[in-house]
Amino acid sequence: MMLDTEKSILIVGLGLIGGSYAKALRKLGFKISAITLNKDDIDFAVENGIIDEGYTEPAPEVIEKAELVIFALYPEVFKKWIAKYQQYFKSGALITDVTGVKSSVVYEIQDMLRPDVEFIAAHPMAGKEVYGVQNSDPKIFHGANYIVTPTEKNTKEAIDDCLELGRLMGFDRVSVLTPEKHDEMIGFVSQLTHCIAVSLMNCYDGEKLQDYTGDSFRDLTRIARINDEMWSELFLLNKDTLLEQMDKFLSAFGKLRSTLEEEDRETMREMMRISTARRALFDKK
Amino acid sequence: MMLDTEKSILIVGLGLIGGSYAKALRKLGFKISAITLNKDDIDFAVENGIIDEGYTEPAPEVIEKAELVIFALYPEVFKKWIAKYQQYFKSGALITDVTGVKSSVVYEIQDMLRPDVEFIAAHPMAGKEVYGVQNSDPKIFHGANYIVTPTEKNTKEAIDDCLELGRLMGFDRVSVLTPEKHDEMIGFVSQLTHCIAVSLMNCYDGEKLQDYTGDSFRDLTRIARINDEMWSELFLLNKDTLLEQMDKFLSAFGKLRSTLEEEDRETMREMMRISTARRALFDKK
Repeated sequence: MMLDTEKSILIVGLGLIGGSYAKALRKLGFKISAITLNKDDIDFAVENGIIDEGYTEPAPEVIEKAELVIFALYPEVFKKWIAKYQQYFKSGALITDVTGVKSSVVYEIQDMLRPDVEFIAAHPMAGKEVYGVQNSDPKIFHGANYIVTPTEKNTKEAIDDCLELGRLMGFDRVSVLTPEKHDEMIGFVSQLTHCIAVSLMNCYDGEKLQDYTGDSFRDLTRIARINDEMWSELFLLNKDTLLEQMDKFLSAFGKLRSTLEEEDRETMREMMRISTARRALFDKK
Repeated sequence: MMLDTEKSILIVGLGLIGGSYAKALRKLGFKISAITLNKDDIDFAVENGIIDEGYTEPAPEVIEKAELVIFALYPEVFKKWIAKYQQYFKSGALITDVTGVKSSVVYEIQDMLRPDVEFIAAHPMAGKEVYGVQNSDPKIFHGANYIVTPTEKNTKEAIDDCLELGRLMGFDRVSVLTPEKHDEMIGFVSQLTHCIAVSLMNCYDGEKLQDYTGDSFRDLTRIARINDEMWSELFLLNKDTLLEQMDKFLSAFGKLRSTLEEEDRETMREMMRISTARRALFDKK
């Protein structure tokens, strides 16, 4: 078992998720270092006991002492970081990440990685509509899913350690999916829903709807507040899968539209019954 | 001012909304009668102090003593009821409703109504995913909108009374819209969002997504549990307006899809920024 608190953990990218990881893990007794661009974030994190020490540069002496390195960066930045600084990893180090898309990241990282370190990918499905280490809070992991997406290059030991990491941090459901299955699932339950919310706010015509909206509109558009830099990157990195999911949705929406246009009440009601029955399964969980 | 507690109120249709009206109004000291199909609902309501008396049939002696009659029926049933039993209304009675669509209901009712009674239409934008007087609860009115939709046939006095009714029952925002503006607004913020949720659940492919869904999917599909009888009727009664809203959404969704297909990151990000800015206005309220 690798995850004893003697091990030194390095978090690269101290934002909302990186900060929440740091808080959760430090509370468990791990020693946490961090590398992040902004000096203010490091000062905040040290002052508030979120990390033990932090650096604004990828200092070799910090990287080389870490036994577990967690990357909480945007995907393209993550890839560049590995290419440039992997030379400093400690031999035998375990590398993991929090990236929201997998196929377009995992294989590329594993292909370029030194043979004496292992990258095991994971996706903590948690977040908030606010950003930064200042808003970090491991409570966002409660009730949330943590998905490990190994490839054939991964060892059983690394997979188990990564699953254990999710459990230790307080995730409710910890599971394993292939990178491809992960991307398909995330394309549907997360990216497609964000596409819908964004589209809905874009066709809103500017009148002061706030005065009249019920809970349904508020719930449906909560996720319309979106970090455009991160999400556009995630969408584009999952392009083909997300296009497929968007087309599936368009097909169902188009069918519902036809039942209305043709006043086909029975098919409309059948779609509503299917929807009701399927959604009921979610509330049972 | 018509709404003093000496006045006798009749509620026709004792379901979730009718029952919640009854509870709110009886607490204020009004005497509440109800007419509803199911004897069990009446027994429940009397035993639990929700109404003073109830009938399963439109008994003339109950109808003719009511000074305010509130209809909480499905729209088509409501129209038929008026046509058949309006002969029993007390002269000078005020009639109101809770129907979720307006243009296709209000004018028709007003056109057929006796000249010595007045129909002032209203829409309480409140609900739950459960049904029946057993689940009624006036707390659903807190934080909710109550919209009065008068026509040129309505008197200022009736409009004011109807607005006062909404305030008395505890609605947060009480306002006036034309039937047409109401239907356009409701087509967008309520019906379109239900169309989206239903479509999303219909393109879900049956795999056990429950294990992986985050809050965004849950929020977005909460309203996918839908009373197919009522909602199909409401959709069809607002057909042209809802088709327009669906097409507006399709246009925005199609535009977002194109930015992905063409990898036009800048336009995609611009749509996300518009979405974020507009949605932020809602959270300020």
